Amino acid sequence: MTSADHQGFSSVDGGVVAAAGFRCAAVHCGLKKSGAPDIAIVTAEHPVSAAALFTTNRVAAAPVELSRVHIGNGSAQTVVINAGNANACTGPKGLRDAARTAEVAAAELGCATDEVLVCSTGVIGVPLPVDLVVAGVSEAATMLDNRTGDGVAQAIMTTDTFSKQCAVSFRIGPTHMTVGGMAKGSGMLKPNMATMLSVITTDAPLTPEACDHALRTAAATTFNRVTVDGDTSTNDTLILMASGAAGGEPIDVGDHALTVFVEALRVVSMELSRMLARDGEGATKLVTVTVDGASSDEQAASAAFAIADSPLVKTALFGNDANWGRIAMAVGKSGADVDVDRLAIRFAGIEVCRDGTAVPFDEDAAAAALDVPEVAIEVDLGLGAGSATVLTCDLSYEYVRINGEYRS
Amino acid sequence: MTSADHQGFSSVDGGVVAAAGFRCAAVHCGLKKSGAPDIAIVTAEHPVSAAALFTTNRVAAAPVELSRVHIGNGSAQTVVINAGNANACTGPKGLRDAARTAEVAAAELGCATDEVLVCSTGVIGVPLPVDLVVAGVSEAATMLDNRTGDGVAQAIMTTDTFSKQCAVSFRIGPTHMTVGGMAKGSGMLKPNMATMLSVITTDAPLTPEACDHALRTAAATTFNRVTVDGDTSTNDTLILMASGAAGGEPIDVGDHALTVFVEALRVVSMELSRMLARDGEGATKLVTVTVDGASSDEQAASAAFAIADSPLVKTALFGNDANWGRIAMAVGKSGADVDVDRLAIRFAGIEVCRDGTAVPFDEDAAAAALDVPEVAIEVDLGLGAGSATVLTCDLSYEYVRINGEYRS
Repeated sequence: MTSADHQGFSSVDGGVVAAAGFRCAAVHCGLKKSGAPDIAIVTAEHPVSAAALFTTNRVAAAPVELSRVHIGNGSAQTVVINAGNANACTGPKGLRDAARTAEVAAAELGCATDEVLVCSTGVIGVPLPVDLVVAGVSEAATMLDNRTGDGVAQAIMTTDTFSKQCAVSFRIGPTHMTVGGMAKGSGMLKPNMATMLSVITTDAPLTPEACDHALRTAAATTFNRVTVDGDTSTNDTLILMASGAAGGEPIDVGDHALTVFVEALRVVSMELSRMLARDGEGATKLVTVTVDGASSDEQAASAAFAIADSPLVKTALFGNDANWGRIAMAVGKSGADVDVDRLAIRFAGIEVCRDGTAVPFDEDAAAAALDVPEVAIEVDLGLGAGSATVLTCDLSYEYVRINGEYRS
Repeated sequence: MTSADHQGFSSVDGGVVAAAGFRCAAVHCGLKKSGAPDIAIVTAEHPVSAAALFTTNRVAAAPVELSRVHIGNGSAQTVVINAGNANACTGPKGLRDAARTAEVAAAELGCATDEVLVCSTGVIGVPLPVDLVVAGVSEAATMLDNRTGDGVAQAIMTTDTFSKQCAVSFRIGPTHMTVGGMAKGSGMLKPNMATMLSVITTDAPLTPEACDHALRTAAATTFNRVTVDGDTSTNDTLILMASGAAGGEPIDVGDHALTVFVEALRVVSMELSRMLARDGEGATKLVTVTVDGASSDEQAASAAFAIADSPLVKTALFGNDANWGRIAMAVGKSGADVDVDRLAIRFAGIEVCRDGTAVPFDEDAAAAALDVPEVAIEVDLGLGAGSATVLTCDLSYEYVRINGEYRS
């Protein structure tokens, strides 16, 4: 968490309930064969300002369709998440099941049904065992507290190998505020949006419009810059809820305070995004791909994603092979403007290509430099001021194993 | 080769020299550490009508740049191919090396330099050992014959596990004609164009314009519909040379005879394309992805490529897992128009999804149906008349091994 400790932001414990005004609970309802918790609830004391971003996949899961409607009023009180079943490609029954989940949560927690957001993650195309889910929701609703986000962060995991939480405290004027959240990966993971499930809470007094603005701004350079395998889930959802429990004047779009808040949110979002990339299915390392010198930021992002999603680049990273020709290939196929004679590439800090041709380097030193938990790929197109950084991971035998056996 | 025996086309031996008027030779010049042949020459007796399609990658290799210029006059006499070094990202020296290769071949074979096309395949970013290459060209030029295409088909291989040749004979009016060719894959393989190196020859009396038209038409539904890993090489080249040695009237654009020729060329191109997909790096099976009912052919192709390039679909195929939810995901992320309530999916002949929801099927029977050398994925979007078929393969441990160790 140390990378969150900078620029006036201090890491704190508590994850998604680090901010004042939120409670959570997790239970096992029967979706995960392992017996691990598979239902998570995060709830505020009353409806609060909220915003959400959803998958751009045109085959969207039932809970996404429901939550898109429920977030329409800019407020929410409760998020219910189940892991182990995506409730996607489940037809009218899937929509009814998502609605019933929201209705039961609303009844248990004493709020309106349209203040409940529902998220699901797991296998696609299998009917949701909704009786198990609502029983789990009822049980969890009796267990809410604000002591730790550990349980809910674990409950939303699927093939994730570790749970993902981050929270920071900061000050706006005299008021101490907190932003904290959780996320899960770890395959079928590429923007837009949101590449995964994540719930972030804050006690900052944001208006609904400020919530929406902050979430879109922070996600653009964090959650929307993560890719594990280029596959975009049917269920991706990113939620921000702002309780206002920190006190102070309402923060709206255009206020200077919102700039500070956005930066805090960006710190948390980046930390969670880095965890998502590091824990990509089968990943042995976190890879940051930075493209500078592009004709535009959009072109830089296209080139960075082409590199990050290239199976040949990813397998070379797994093999600790500084095979930079594959990076040149990926840049060239990306559609971004390229003048090969200006292309420069650094691999794990080692200059390997300048003016589009090889720079001699020590292969053994390069292999050692690549054999670390975090590797940087830096590309300069030498054309303009466009820049983008994308987070990803390598492609290993383990990815093939996990996804060749996923349903069994 | 039996799939080429239909509609009046008969399989014949000889590969790239099956058609009258062509000779070839292969030698080892020192690029492949194994000692296997790594230089191939295919040549006509004189300049003949020719056309070529090249990679769309903006980082194009030196031989691609050179051959683009040399094909500009619609004729060619000789193709020189080296395997073991891509001569890509090699700067001005790379261009000089490609030009010198053409000059030496021209001198040895007694033709103009701009009648020589050059192709290279292998590692990117390593200077071409041009002295080895031109020595190999000189040696090969003394060994030309038309007995078999076996040697050259083997010489152009890199990580291919088998050589790829196909030839058919057919009749236009009273005249017997032949089309035959060779190709190599097998990673960094996605259109457009041409996903690999391939040289196809014919004795049909095509004009240069007919050559170009025929090649583009046949490639559109064959070579341009193959993907192994979604990565597009810097070196892809597809060449068609027409000697006219079969005799008969010249065949030009608009002639009925060209329609017959295009179909023969399509048969050869499809057979080579199927071999490319079947021999994709690490592949355990050939996968044909057909999307029907799309709003347009272009949208059908987008959806089919999204399925074919999805690592999650490809690993499920490797695991013989009829995890059709991943196909629905890939269709949804493709950008093609989708109404999930009309989506139908068949996996290895088994209906698994209808109206966007699951159709119960026997998992054991499905696993058995998938555990075969060739698997069909059929998707119907239920929206329009758009259709496309893409050829691909699964994603296995072996792909990771090959590409994690490629340069070592």
